[in-house]
Amino acid sequence: MSGTAVLAQEAPAQDISEDLQVALNTLWVLYAGALVFFMNAGFCMLETGFCRSKNAVNLLSKNLIVFALSSIAFWILGFAIMFGDGNGFLGYSGFFLAGADNSPATDDNYVGVYTSISWAAVPLAAKFFFQLVFAGTAATIVSGAVAERIKFYAFFLFSLCLIGISYPMTGHWVWGGGWLAELGFWDFAGSTVVHSVGGWAALMGAALLGPRMGRFMEDGSAMAIPGHNFAIATLGCLILWLGWFGFNPGSTMEADPMAIAHITLTTNMAAAFGAVTATVVSTLYFTKPDLSMIINGVLAGLVAITAPCAYVSVESSVLIGAIAGVIIVFSVIFVDGLKIDDPVGAISVHLVNGVWGTLAVGLFADGPGRFYGEGAGPLRGLLLGGGIEQLWYQIVGILAIGGFTVLFSTIVWIVLNSTIGIRVSPEEEVEGLDLGEHGMEAYSGFMFRDEVKGFVDILKRMTTGR
Amino acid sequence: MSGTAVLAQEAPAQDISEDLQVALNTLWVLYAGALVFFMNAGFCMLETGFCRSKNAVNLLSKNLIVFALSSIAFWILGFAIMFGDGNGFLGYSGFFLAGADNSPATDDNYVGVYTSISWAAVPLAAKFFFQLVFAGTAATIVSGAVAERIKFYAFFLFSLCLIGISYPMTGHWVWGGGWLAELGFWDFAGSTVVHSVGGWAALMGAALLGPRMGRFMEDGSAMAIPGHNFAIATLGCLILWLGWFGFNPGSTMEADPMAIAHITLTTNMAAAFGAVTATVVSTLYFTKPDLSMIINGVLAGLVAITAPCAYVSVESSVLIGAIAGVIIVFSVIFVDGLKIDDPVGAISVHLVNGVWGTLAVGLFADGPGRFYGEGAGPLRGLLLGGGIEQLWYQIVGILAIGGFTVLFSTIVWIVLNSTIGIRVSPEEEVEGLDLGEHGMEAYSGFMFRDEVKGFVDILKRMTTGR
Amino acid sequence: MSGTAVLAQEAPAQDISEDLQVALNTLWVLYAGALVFFMNAGFCMLETGFCRSKNAVNLLSKNLIVFALSSIAFWILGFAIMFGDGNGFLGYSGFFLAGADNSPATDDNYVGVYTSISWAAVPLAAKFFFQLVFAGTAATIVSGAVAERIKFYAFFLFSLCLIGISYPMTGHWVWGGGWLAELGFWDFAGSTVVHSVGGWAALMGAALLGPRMGRFMEDGSAMAIPGHNFAIATLGCLILWLGWFGFNPGSTMEADPMAIAHITLTTNMAAAFGAVTATVVSTLYFTKPDLSMIINGVLAGLVAITAPCAYVSVESSVLIGAIAGVIIVFSVIFVDGLKIDDPVGAISVHLVNGVWGTLAVGLFADGPGRFYGEGAGPLRGLLLGGGIEQLWYQIVGILAIGGFTVLFSTIVWIVLNSTIGIRVSPEEEVEGLDLGEHGMEAYSGFMFRDEVKGFVDILKRMTTGR
Repeated sequence: MSGTAVLAQEAPAQDISEDLQVALNTLWVLYAGALVFFMNAGFCMLETGFCRSKNAVNLLSKNLIVFALSSIAFWILGFAIMFGDGNGFLGYSGFFLAGADNSPATDDNYVGVYTSISWAAVPLAAKFFFQLVFAGTAATIVSGAVAERIKFYAFFLFSLCLIGISYPMTGHWVWGGGWLAELGFWDFAGSTVVHSVGGWAALMGAALLGPRMGRFMEDGSAMAIPGHNFAIATLGCLILWLGWFGFNPGSTMEADPMAIAHITLTTNMAAAFGAVTATVVSTLYFTKPDLSMIINGVLAGLVAITAPCAYVSVESSVLIGAIAGVIIVFSVIFVDGLKIDDPVGAISVHLVNGVWGTLAVGLFADGPGRFYGEGAGPLRGLLLGGGIEQLWYQIVGILAIGGFTVLFSTIVWIVLNSTIGIRVSPEEEVEGLDLGEHGMEAYSGFMFRDEVKGFVDILKRMTTGR
Repeated sequence: MSGTAVLAQEAPAQDISEDLQVALNTLWVLYAGALVFFMNAGFCMLETGFCRSKNAVNLLSKNLIVFALSSIAFWILGFAIMFGDGNGFLGYSGFFLAGADNSPATDDNYVGVYTSISWAAVPLAAKFFFQLVFAGTAATIVSGAVAERIKFYAFFLFSLCLIGISYPMTGHWVWGGGWLAELGFWDFAGSTVVHSVGGWAALMGAALLGPRMGRFMEDGSAMAIPGHNFAIATLGCLILWLGWFGFNPGSTMEADPMAIAHITLTTNMAAAFGAVTATVVSTLYFTKPDLSMIINGVLAGLVAITAPCAYVSVESSVLIGAIAGVIIVFSVIFVDGLKIDDPVGAISVHLVNGVWGTLAVGLFADGPGRFYGEGAGPLRGLLLGGGIEQLWYQIVGILAIGGFTVLFSTIVWIVLNSTIGIRVSPEEEVEGLDLGEHGMEAYSGFMFRDEVKGFVDILKRMTTGR
Repeated sequence: MSGTAVLAQEAPAQDISEDLQVALNTLWVLYAGALVFFMNAGFCMLETGFCRSKNAVNLLSKNLIVFALSSIAFWILGFAIMFGDGNGFLGYSGFFLAGADNSPATDDNYVGVYTSISWAAVPLAAKFFFQLVFAGTAATIVSGAVAERIKFYAFFLFSLCLIGISYPMTGHWVWGGGWLAELGFWDFAGSTVVHSVGGWAALMGAALLGPRMGRFMEDGSAMAIPGHNFAIATLGCLILWLGWFGFNPGSTMEADPMAIAHITLTTNMAAAFGAVTATVVSTLYFTKPDLSMIINGVLAGLVAITAPCAYVSVESSVLIGAIAGVIIVFSVIFVDGLKIDDPVGAISVHLVNGVWGTLAVGLFADGPGRFYGEGAGPLRGLLLGGGIEQLWYQIVGILAIGGFTVLFSTIVWIVLNSTIGIRVSPEEEVEGLDLGEHGMEAYSGFMFRDEVKGFVDILKRMTTGR
């Protein structure tokens, strides 16, 4: 890399600098991508902990296999649809990552079929890996909302469709140079492109599946079904918080020091304020601080700052996160009121706060190029004295992507339901999916209260039957 | 970054080099900071696992919210007090991270109000993020020692005071160019600045709260209260070990290859030898290897090497870690003897070994600039043929910072106690803080022995009452 | 680093570039090393979760102490034997990491006693740290296969011997410039050097220890002994998957952007396809998807791609992983048929798929320098139209390293057995190693079914005895 003969005098410094910059960018992207990959462990622990032990193996299995499925679907179809050359609606070049490409050459020097991502000065494999771990996030969001009642292979097939077709298509509109990018819609790291998309798919899945048995009473009241392991759920939350330090600043795909440091900070402050307002509001509302609300407050702040993280000041990130922490509490209550059963709060975290974060760009953006982007970026936000224009673009993007994802998800869920079926039998649901779907249990050897209930009955009969 | 016109011939290479070095440093600092952030998950799992299941939700909640609180307190007050321009005793410039600053410019080129940290060639946001995750560590140390009996909101408020005022003030003395730095006290990554400070605050909290019910008998003997989940405790230990590969070498805040590789190695060797000596000593003393001692042996080695990691040879790090592993066993026994109830051993790990590590600088330092620091650094240590001078400075620093932290913590704990109260009621303590403070349980559905006890009583009555 | 006077005009750009490249490489190696270190947590959670709760403290203790022991043995002996100057069979220079060395100077500029690793442009401490975390992996593989019946200090001593002597010796043959390297055997990141070596040692340990009580019936049938915590086991799997993003691309020890991005991608695709084929095959074979098979499918794909990751195309990595996922299912059944009791499947994952991955180099390699290595690397593989030559070299390497490791391990296990003994007493095995070896339990307070059994008996007696 450094041993080439030096002929010109200016050129080498320039060339060497570019080589080093590419190496530095690649290191940054692979590191950030690894953090985002690790979010799979975060979601896995969070969702499993929030559900009942009798369905733990099922949740663990779904969360483990879903990234594998995303890897396959995004390799075969997704990346080409999202970033391959095509039209404003979808890409159709470079399936199987086999298109022409001379990355890390950028911009005018780029020759290949993935033009829309040619601004990133890293090898194609690094671009694919980073975008893949994002796609995996969208898929795993669904997993939580449909938990404790969905058939394993139905989820398996839905994930393939979501990541192979729908996610990359709407992603193309924004990050693939499609019509929303042309319009002026901005979503830096995916409050809408990733989180809301996962959230809409989750919403339709949860709605079509119907609630878990015993979740809503005939009189209309909701019964909380407590999670079985808050230790791993909290661990999952902290892993996700960590992962976001890759998710948001990594979306620069460049080791631009001012940008990545700023984004890391806005990301953290939104999470911190989301945690605190959710804690305080849930204490005021429920009289005691609810751990699941603290967890979801952190995540709400993180989802909300994802779109605006590169465009807003630290002060704005504080407000965005603080509001997200309030929204989450009331959103969970609201979704409950709709009788939609979302065991982990995925809809409130990812969909509702994904929408909030996307709107926040139109409210709080400092103006093009302020913290990132060399003059490009969203217009100054409404609350900072800019006009309504950017907010309007954001609303268009939210509605368009939401509408498409709802339509697509509904069709796929209905097709799956009318073929292999999407919901396990009531017997299996009562017994637990672990025995029904996997023939095993998560915590072999431990004694559960449900077992003791039967045991008490037997004893009662033993003692009273004499 | 690389497209600027080339006018002079020497200049570009120089400029490009500096730009790349800043980018490289920033990547290093953000990476190391992310590892240190992840230590929150380590402490969370460690402390929760070491305590009883009936208080798990409370410990998880405290450990999750504490970093959010640190983020807020350190943003508003802490960073300005610690690194803002001021006098030798405290900084008073740049609250809300809103002071003037032209980072990553360094030294003479620096213009701004955070002069004491202007040596680091990274953006201000990166400096803040890295220092923030350090502050978070100090706060989380307290959490373990006061576990299973403290009120949630008392801890909440104490953390805000500690990280907003006390920690940054003593930190200013050392890392903010204050009077201890002037004196010649050296603490590379915070055996004293972070760990002992957390440890002193923990000691006062534990002492003022008093022991958990049933911990010490009337005859003076101590009853061990076993932790409920050693799987997550061990995971926590390994996460902390990982985090220390950011904590110590990251404190260079510069991607200086020789220094960061050396520090990574001294850090690891101290942990390894701490683990082994603690295992062997605890086998000899208790006849069997105690897992909680192996865990605390690792942490003792890590805390002890934190101050000297950049100043000592690998051979010295081996000795420092090995001694730490012996100290931890006897310190735990000693603290027990004082009838101070520290459920997780935080005082022995962070305070006692923080002191040991700080002294070790005065004993084992190789002399200025040997492994790091271009001529600066502690004087050659006593055991390597240097004089007593450095050791004396270290003792002054330990006493000054310890004295201040004890005084401050005591006042805050007493004020909190006389207002909102710091200890939960005896009924709540017996029932568990999870139900009392949060209205939920960590492991819903699992059967616990305590429940069975009542159950056995009922059955006995059922069977004998007939 | 950048303040030196500029005398010549070509030189500075060159020098500065080299300095920056060394810093960049070092950051990469320390980051990748930290990920590999974290695999200790992965193995720890995986193995513990796959075993019974009554042996959890023992497994956690073993997995925690084993990296400490590896650190010590590899520092004193291992690194010198593996990379120190010597002959084709072993190195014998530079014990205690105290040999002469002017790293990061490379190749002809290198002066020191660790010539075989002088190609890596990073400081010696970074080389050592990265190789150490690899050595730790080999040791920890053994832990799983001998679980639930081995004496704590027997494992302790075996690990010291394996990492101090045997692992570095066979490693020297391949990565230390020894006779297998001379022959033309290639193993990029250690399918054989690390995983098979651990696997062979595990096989001999498991075979010599004999199966756990109750594992094989007198009629020859095998009884599954279910693991106690699939939540942590799945977490462990995801941590290992993450760790492999350091293990494989980090083995470049250089921030070569094209290589590290490509290797990251082949690594991920093999894991994804391994997961999916193992899921599908285990569903077909056992009628339901088995979570332990999904987990081991991921790991099988990762182990298999470890040797060829830098030499094969993404398409080939897909095939290698997919085949690994099939192999794992039948290998687990086959090892069961041999009546060798491997509680976690370590032999099938690390030994069998280590062999498969090493052979895959001879089948799928694209030819020297195609993806990495500037003209060096394995010959074109058999299935890509190359000859049988490379495959033959791979077979020689597998047999030689396997033969040596089997011989060495057998001797050490037998010596340990005839001195301190390697297997716990039957009483201790029934009661659990946690009480027997450590005097503590992992999940204090939880109720276990085994306890209830006795309880039921008592109650039966109570109720019927009247």
